Amino acid sequence: MAVALLSIGTELTRGEIINTNEAWLAAELTAAGFTVSESSTVDDDVDRIVAAVRQLASAHRLVIATGGLGPTTDDLTAKAAARAMGTDLVRDESTLLAIRRRVESRGKTMNAGHEKQAEVPAGSEILPNSSGSAPGFGIHLGESTVFFLPGVPREMKSMFAEQVLPRVRPAAPNNTFQVRLRTYGLPESTLGELLKGVEEAHPGITLGYRVHYPEVDLKVHARAATQSMAHDLALKATADVRERLGTAVYGEGGDAFPEMVGRSVRARGWRLAVSESCTGGLISHLLTSYPASDYLVGAAVTYANSAKTRLLGVAEDTLRGHGAVSAEVAAEMAQGVRRLCEVDVAISVTGIAGPTGGTATKPVGLCYWAVSHPGGLVVRDRVFSGDREEVQLGAAYAVLDLLRRIAGNLPER
Amino acid sequence: MAVALLSIGTELTRGEIINTNEAWLAAELTAAGFTVSESSTVDDDVDRIVAAVRQLASAHRLVIATGGLGPTTDDLTAKAAARAMGTDLVRDESTLLAIRRRVESRGKTMNAGHEKQAEVPAGSEILPNSSGSAPGFGIHLGESTVFFLPGVPREMKSMFAEQVLPRVRPAAPNNTFQVRLRTYGLPESTLGELLKGVEEAHPGITLGYRVHYPEVDLKVHARAATQSMAHDLALKATADVRERLGTAVYGEGGDAFPEMVGRSVRARGWRLAVSESCTGGLISHLLTSYPASDYLVGAAVTYANSAKTRLLGVAEDTLRGHGAVSAEVAAEMAQGVRRLCEVDVAISVTGIAGPTGGTATKPVGLCYWAVSHPGGLVVRDRVFSGDREEVQLGAAYAVLDLLRRIAGNLPER
Repeated sequence: MAVALLSIGTELTRGEIINTNEAWLAAELTAAGFTVSESSTVDDDVDRIVAAVRQLASAHRLVIATGGLGPTTDDLTAKAAARAMGTDLVRDESTLLAIRRRVESRGKTMNAGHEKQAEVPAGSEILPNSSGSAPGFGIHLGESTVFFLPGVPREMKSMFAEQVLPRVRPAAPNNTFQVRLRTYGLPESTLGELLKGVEEAHPGITLGYRVHYPEVDLKVHARAATQSMAHDLALKATADVRERLGTAVYGEGGDAFPEMVGRSVRARGWRLAVSESCTGGLISHLLTSYPASDYLVGAAVTYANSAKTRLLGVAEDTLRGHGAVSAEVAAEMAQGVRRLCEVDVAISVTGIAGPTGGTATKPVGLCYWAVSHPGGLVVRDRVFSGDREEVQLGAAYAVLDLLRRIAGNLPER
Repeated sequence: MAVALLSIGTELTRGEIINTNEAWLAAELTAAGFTVSESSTVDDDVDRIVAAVRQLASAHRLVIATGGLGPTTDDLTAKAAARAMGTDLVRDESTLLAIRRRVESRGKTMNAGHEKQAEVPAGSEILPNSSGSAPGFGIHLGESTVFFLPGVPREMKSMFAEQVLPRVRPAAPNNTFQVRLRTYGLPESTLGELLKGVEEAHPGITLGYRVHYPEVDLKVHARAATQSMAHDLALKATADVRERLGTAVYGEGGDAFPEMVGRSVRARGWRLAVSESCTGGLISHLLTSYPASDYLVGAAVTYANSAKTRLLGVAEDTLRGHGAVSAEVAAEMAQGVRRLCEVDVAISVTGIAGPTGGTATKPVGLCYWAVSHPGGLVVRDRVFSGDREEVQLGAAYAVLDLLRRIAGNLPER
């Protein structure tokens, strides 16, 4: 069943906020077997919301709208939904009570904004909000059902999972299957070359690429007569793809690169320490963004030279002789933090993240990284292109990938 | 002039990627004086791309489309654009040459994917790509101009700035002005209460709220007869808003919270050290995501208790007596890193980011943070709600805000 998404909010049409809700809903609906064929965004204008709701409802059996249910004057979605139905807003007393309980349990008092959130279109079906105050609601327009959810991502997500998905799931068709492979280390055009002929060899398969620096995701999408056939087709094609791409594939589906690196370290029974200069804590942050990161003992962000010397014992002679951005300093940083934290393996990065600080011999983007491990010491370098964020991310991924390969006994690049 | 955006890519309609391009383009066009009244997303399907291009072009004088110009088989935008015009794809020799130079300068050889990117609709105006290989192009459909840009954000941004904006800017109306205030520390509903009556007191002003945890942006949008009048109106209303919100406003426009915190520290001539436990490097990463962060000497991410003791000198008695998540440990961490790095001011966070590790007396989300500064020591605590990412962000912002207030001689919360 084709589904449409509608995002409501001037903060979206003016580009003040990135529409993460749309992607999240599209992914959830896709996973449930629906095809999202259209998504639209309109600003907080009653007439335009009404027009968009009516237009999408006329062409789709299911529409999911988000945004504009909040407490402030620019939240107009409930009013627009009522007008699209040809009805009025009514105050829902049980919703008002729930809001009052929520507000008072936090030691606050009710205000007009809270009360406004209890107003819903007459004749709509109320969707309780388990993680916020504004309720959602569902309405029928002709053949279509339109659900209205809050724009705050956490509230939207729990309301979709708890209230919407159970109501709509039975209507989903199921004749596709998709595998998402996560890759790092090869550019999109190289992946395309390596995978030439895969679609022809496996009829019903479509390959899709998604670059999110420095990673490229590859989706292997199968469509067949039944979902079980699509499943088998996808797995067969995925095996082919994996064989062609080798160790550039680090995981599947929701696997995250830092998490997979951590898993390799943990699998060896290693404890890890990190030392960072130009990446400024990013490596440590990436590793600790995921639970079960207790293989990490600690990290030293030695941004200033004095910190490199004082915390890690990098020799002043090395700093003077080779400069802070050098293979020698990267090596001493890794060895120093390994000693300091008394761990099995340690990594380091030093470089010039920019936008300033480059010289003719050491340009912005130049980074050295090292892994000190039970089998020895490996140092690598590269000039990363891009802005400060890209240099930092590029260097962080490079050292984490080297660590992943050493921990996993994979060929080093 | 009303503008429409079209985003092309199955990775979007399937929710595999967040549409950051749409927000960026909307913000740029808004800043240039255009009104983005509609944005749509379609998948990589030639017929649907053709239909969307024709539909948006029939209702808007200017359409900006992004995506689907890449080297792989799922990139179909050029073909669809040609079909919408009723023409064919032709190979552009000067584009092919530019791609060849780019590829060979990187020590690679041309492949079919690279060659495909030199194919553009006959009769289109080519937009050179200064930061990638696929060119963009502009076409005319009836009264409308449609520009097609690559989907890779870096390439899209430079092509928009260099090729599109200079061509379209003369057509922008200019009777609005907007100030974006950045706030931290008050929830959206409290902001709404504090700002009640502002729109009525300043006719022509619209307030807009944007929650991006843990911040809330507030836009003060003015519309008047001329841009200069809109400018004056916006500044007057902004002064009113600032007076009502006090120190919850930390900046304006593109100011970033960590950057403003750093500026406060730098203004005092202080050098800073950071110690983090549950935030795992996030605080240090936030501060060093911006240039001019050399007020930061270093950071210790003491994830394990052994690291707290060994790196920062936190007493084993304190860890045993109060637990790693305690006011006492937060204090010793801040004091320890201050001593270690020999700096003026140091901050620390210790807590339970979750999703596991909580107890009845110390639940998930409980965090203690401290600032050790020339005037003394301040320790605070709170139980943050939300997932791991929200707890980490919440705690990081809380300690940075405390530092901002102490450095800036603002009232502490």
